[in-house]
Amino acid sequence: MGGTNIRCAAVSPSGRVMLLRRAPSEAGASAPAVASNIAAQIRALEDAARRRGMGRARAIGVAVPGPLDVYRGVVMAAPHVKAWRGFPLRARLEAELGRHVVVENDANAWALGEFWRGAARGHRDVVLLTLGTGIGGGLIVGGKIVHGRSGMAGELGHITVEPEGMPCDCGSRGCVEAYASSSGMRALVARRLGARKRMPAQYLDRDGNFSVRAMTSCARAHDRLALETFSIAGRYLGIAIASLLNIFNPDLIVIGGGVAGALPHMRKAMTAEVRARAFVAIAAQARIVRAALGPIGGVVGAAYAAINPVRRQG
Amino acid sequence: MGGTNIRCAAVSPSGRVMLLRRAPSEAGASAPAVASNIAAQIRALEDAARRRGMGRARAIGVAVPGPLDVYRGVVMAAPHVKAWRGFPLRARLEAELGRHVVVENDANAWALGEFWRGAARGHRDVVLLTLGTGIGGGLIVGGKIVHGRSGMAGELGHITVEPEGMPCDCGSRGCVEAYASSSGMRALVARRLGARKRMPAQYLDRDGNFSVRAMTSCARAHDRLALETFSIAGRYLGIAIASLLNIFNPDLIVIGGGVAGALPHMRKAMTAEVRARAFVAIAAQARIVRAALGPIGGVVGAAYAAINPVRRQG
Repeated sequence: MGGTNIRCAAVSPSGRVMLLRRAPSEAGASAPAVASNIAAQIRALEDAARRRGMGRARAIGVAVPGPLDVYRGVVMAAPHVKAWRGFPLRARLEAELGRHVVVENDANAWALGEFWRGAARGHRDVVLLTLGTGIGGGLIVGGKIVHGRSGMAGELGHITVEPEGMPCDCGSRGCVEAYASSSGMRALVARRLGARKRMPAQYLDRDGNFSVRAMTSCARAHDRLALETFSIAGRYLGIAIASLLNIFNPDLIVIGGGVAGALPHMRKAMTAEVRARAFVAIAAQARIVRAALGPIGGVVGAAYAAINPVRRQG
Repeated sequence: MGGTNIRCAAVSPSGRVMLLRRAPSEAGASAPAVASNIAAQIRALEDAARRRGMGRARAIGVAVPGPLDVYRGVVMAAPHVKAWRGFPLRARLEAELGRHVVVENDANAWALGEFWRGAARGHRDVVLLTLGTGIGGGLIVGGKIVHGRSGMAGELGHITVEPEGMPCDCGSRGCVEAYASSSGMRALVARRLGARKRMPAQYLDRDGNFSVRAMTSCARAHDRLALETFSIAGRYLGIAIASLLNIFNPDLIVIGGGVAGALPHMRKAMTAEVRARAFVAIAAQARIVRAALGPIGGVVGAAYAAINPVRRQG
């Protein structure tokens, strides 16, 4: 479930996508209406699967943006679905479908997808950073997602990297999201241009919105401001990654999301900070790689979460 | 095993300390000599236990400072035992004692001690910060220590909190250790006084060394520089804690170590940063508390680690 689209897939027990549908998520609708739309997409997918001779789904997993109480299946806040504040999504979907449903945070699901079928296969300690409009995170420790007390762990976009830095959408300042996400980069460009100058047309997409992809093309053509912005973003991304290395001693840092396409332009500044700040013995054991699955990562991971549900221990 | 003393205890299966010995650690000796001294202390403790009618130890755990390859039992680097660089401590102790030995990082062991018998009893997601000469960390996720790829996870003192900040002993800049440890506070005071002024006598202990405890007494008497220093330290400790809350969504942040006595003077600045930077829903679920066990925490946790050894999975 994303801000624009719902992607819905039939995934085999070994993690292969057998069937994939995409539909508008209609995220602006009321909270129950958005949930009903998800349920309708799941039913439509199951119908299509049945027509192709596949059986009934063994388990249903849904990946949603935003902090989530994973044990109760309650969405605490969703950046794209304003109506979901403390919304009992799992109970709602289970009522609509008459079946058990597993709900997981989208970045956690993506991490599981990469772990199961993507860049992190064969590794047990993995940190995923998703660089998009904001920054999300998924933590795998010893082969399991870190959920924390109520499933809200992994808010890696909100690691402070510059105490008095750029304002962040979360209300704080100097979070890594305020630099290395597309909204952060947009703010960096705007700050550099000053209040009176408009965003350069070459940084906009066809709809007139700021686009990291467009800015990446400019960087390729040696555009100074684009290169400078990516360098600042890369520096702060590197600071956050260095802290994550020292905290987790992981096998892998996996970087995904729309902004990851700009990594070649961020890597030099990023690597310099990692080298300066992470323990040498830790950094030497970890690779920093691109995610392999793209937008399908969360869908595959939602299936993994459905097949391997977590239980609150203790 | 500490820089000054070896504490050696017979611990019951329920975590009670039955017998406790203390001996100089002689950390300046050669690498094998320091290890032999540990083995000798363990043998002496077992002899004393036997004389009191206790049986042979069921398992032997040793907690040591510094990053450690926990799976191979190799000390990568120890701050107080300069000779231990890539030293195969476990193999050495096993050869000397003719028995299986479990080696664990001291901050991890302390976290396990608090989890088993201290401030973190009954909780499953716990972050321990030990504020001493440096800052160590122990992470418990779902009731288990986070070791990472090779056991070096939990270097929480080296989370960057001020990119261009105070130099840190690790070679980087602006680590939280460079502010909220005793060596960090000492440097903050020295910077404030300028190169030519000597450290005020009231901040020194009887041996003429900088002492956070002495400065805490001064703070109680409203000494301005002491209060200011604790406020800066508290601010950066709060920034690190806010990031750790957003990363782990823990039940508890446990703070131990000699510097923790200054917490009352750090708490206001610390809390302000936590409030400003951590997600409200996450911060509301977590308490920030003092460690309950003191120097015995690591000893109790070493026993826990010995009874519940980790295995490299996967």
